[in-house]
Amino acid sequence: MALYVQKFGGTSVGSIERIQAVADKVIKFRQDGHDIVVVVSAMSGETNRLIELAKAIDLDPSARELDVLVSTGEQVTIALLSMALNKKGCAARSYTGGQVKILTDNVHSKARILSIDEDNMRKDLSAGRVVVVAGFQGVDEEGNITTLGRGGSDTSAVALAAALKADECQIYTDVDGVYTTDPRVVDKARRLDCITFEEMLEMASLGSKVLQIRSVEFAGKYNVPLRVLSSFEDGPGTLITLEDNDTMEQPIVSGIAFNRDEAKLTVLGVADVPGVAAQIIGPISDANIEVDMIIQNTARDKSTDFTFTVHRNDYERAKKILEQQTEKLNIREIIGDDTIAKVSIVGVGMRSHAGVASKMFRCLAKEAINVQLISTSEIKISVVINEKYLELAVRALHSAFGLDAMETDK
Amino acid sequence: MALYVQKFGGTSVGSIERIQAVADKVIKFRQDGHDIVVVVSAMSGETNRLIELAKAIDLDPSARELDVLVSTGEQVTIALLSMALNKKGCAARSYTGGQVKILTDNVHSKARILSIDEDNMRKDLSAGRVVVVAGFQGVDEEGNITTLGRGGSDTSAVALAAALKADECQIYTDVDGVYTTDPRVVDKARRLDCITFEEMLEMASLGSKVLQIRSVEFAGKYNVPLRVLSSFEDGPGTLITLEDNDTMEQPIVSGIAFNRDEAKLTVLGVADVPGVAAQIIGPISDANIEVDMIIQNTARDKSTDFTFTVHRNDYERAKKILEQQTEKLNIREIIGDDTIAKVSIVGVGMRSHAGVASKMFRCLAKEAINVQLISTSEIKISVVINEKYLELAVRALHSAFGLDAMETDK
Repeated sequence: MALYVQKFGGTSVGSIERIQAVADKVIKFRQDGHDIVVVVSAMSGETNRLIELAKAIDLDPSARELDVLVSTGEQVTIALLSMALNKKGCAARSYTGGQVKILTDNVHSKARILSIDEDNMRKDLSAGRVVVVAGFQGVDEEGNITTLGRGGSDTSAVALAAALKADECQIYTDVDGVYTTDPRVVDKARRLDCITFEEMLEMASLGSKVLQIRSVEFAGKYNVPLRVLSSFEDGPGTLITLEDNDTMEQPIVSGIAFNRDEAKLTVLGVADVPGVAAQIIGPISDANIEVDMIIQNTARDKSTDFTFTVHRNDYERAKKILEQQTEKLNIREIIGDDTIAKVSIVGVGMRSHAGVASKMFRCLAKEAINVQLISTSEIKISVVINEKYLELAVRALHSAFGLDAMETDK
Repeated sequence: MALYVQKFGGTSVGSIERIQAVADKVIKFRQDGHDIVVVVSAMSGETNRLIELAKAIDLDPSARELDVLVSTGEQVTIALLSMALNKKGCAARSYTGGQVKILTDNVHSKARILSIDEDNMRKDLSAGRVVVVAGFQGVDEEGNITTLGRGGSDTSAVALAAALKADECQIYTDVDGVYTTDPRVVDKARRLDCITFEEMLEMASLGSKVLQIRSVEFAGKYNVPLRVLSSFEDGPGTLITLEDNDTMEQPIVSGIAFNRDEAKLTVLGVADVPGVAAQIIGPISDANIEVDMIIQNTARDKSTDFTFTVHRNDYERAKKILEQQTEKLNIREIIGDDTIAKVSIVGVGMRSHAGVASKMFRCLAKEAINVQLISTSEIKISVVINEKYLELAVRALHSAFGLDAMETDK
């Protein structure tokens, strides 16, 4: 008998029928003798409906009141799911974030969880009841309702699993697991049985939008086994754990991530003196533009080139900000390109395997794909290429690193 | 400077525009230097929408979960109204019932208020903030969300006014006050400036559906001055107080109430022995049929006739129940009529004025209206007549007791 925290997102509870299906799924686990804490989001569309109401009053509404408003979305779902479970003969009890209580700081709309009181939930679990908790919300020390920000229900689930020392935190989504790459690009993409938190972080931030990054970090920190699986089909999903030790022989590369939404900007002839990087990036981040890759190579002749990538939507704005600095920074020239794509290979296996990078570059060269930028981390190698080669690059790398599904897998 | 508790119902907050209008009204009172606590209902239609969701899952849903569900309706309104006030430059802060906290017993869907913690509200009022409270809801000792039942927002407002010792509890509705009778029946019906709690109770229970009876009882018990006024038009409304002492010369009769939804049942030849009344009414109330008037006259020849009235919808059911008892109770005959109407004259003035009853009967006789039943209380005389004479009777009594509006009032 295990204790599972199961999280169902907005689509999974988007209608009365879906809520009934979630109840059936939960009951199946109960019948197998497991204790269940369910975390739910607002029914799909509801949060947006509430935000529209607020915006009709104030485009920048009071953050405290916005949290009071949108937190009703999850409250509706916990009540309906608890009713459905009770109706089907499975005792259940709902909890708002405040009722649990999930104590957070007082930063409305992006609060951080400080602590979770598990006493009430334990009592219900001991009494054989399913506990249904509103995701995405908490309460600060003064009793004000807070929310964790969009997608925060994943974080709620992981935090509850950590507090309750659950055996597994199961995140039910509309995909059946984490894939080696996007199946829409590579039809031989394969569901992974297992992936490490670190790999998942690199995959998630690179565009595999299965899980909120923050919830993965949280799960890693508290070592909560996290499983991504489908709300709609049965299947084992993908287990995300601390160590990828399920297989004797680890694959070197676990997946290929990519991103087509980037643009690059290069500042040519930057003086090779301390503080220049900060002077370039400072105004960009002051303008609330997020920067992804930052690359600077060894200087030649006391000057160097400085390159960074931003979201394509921010490209023109970032370029203008740089151009305003040319005189101040004594910049020779600014060049940019918004027709690029980033491709990354991710895997804890590459730590101990030399030659992964050269294998990657050889593979791309064989397809005559020019590599514009290179950046690496412990478990990731990213390259920037012309966007028109993206699909080709991903497919070639997927195959080169042995990720293609066998015919029999299909 | 006064402290006002102002309650706005579902229609008054039924759209963003209406909520803006409520904010404007509140701000006008603030500008006059008054402290304001606003109590709001769910936006019109919202509570029904939520109940429909619940019924789609379970026709008889868990009472605890139903309260969790429907309480979100008011929570949405408090957030939106607070946003509107803040946006217009009037500092405001919302409170759910639990946040106040309004402590209730644990009878879900019809909880009774036990106590109200005024500390947080006082702090906000002292800081110059408008306090916006969700009506209709509270929290029990274990932190479960409770609701006071439909229309409970009036009760919330009165209870808050009592706890805060407010100068007045203002109930904003879609009518501009309490009238001498229904203006749809008597076009000379007149708005009352003042009425006592007792009169209001008799008026309300007799069909003037302006206020919830329970909130009037509550206001009377704690002597909270209650004012009914229009959300949509400016005007003084009607003040409901302990003593009708605003005018030197009190009118004898304050209003004419009536009810066309009743039916009467008479049991003929009931033995004049103890316990018979209970034997007749017992099975009726066991069947959850509400009884209004009960009339029994002095016995003749050791038998008497027993008459009571029920809602017209319950007439056939009540009649069948009685018929099942004929043998047991040795009843001679049961007769009934569901084409009746009840007309009542209400007024604290009649306590000290002899001749009110005879004036009433003379007035009806003059119009050739036969009186079928008569029942009286301290401040009310009710008669049952054939329903076809209802409008005639109300108009004649309204005129006879000097309630008609002057031409200049129109």
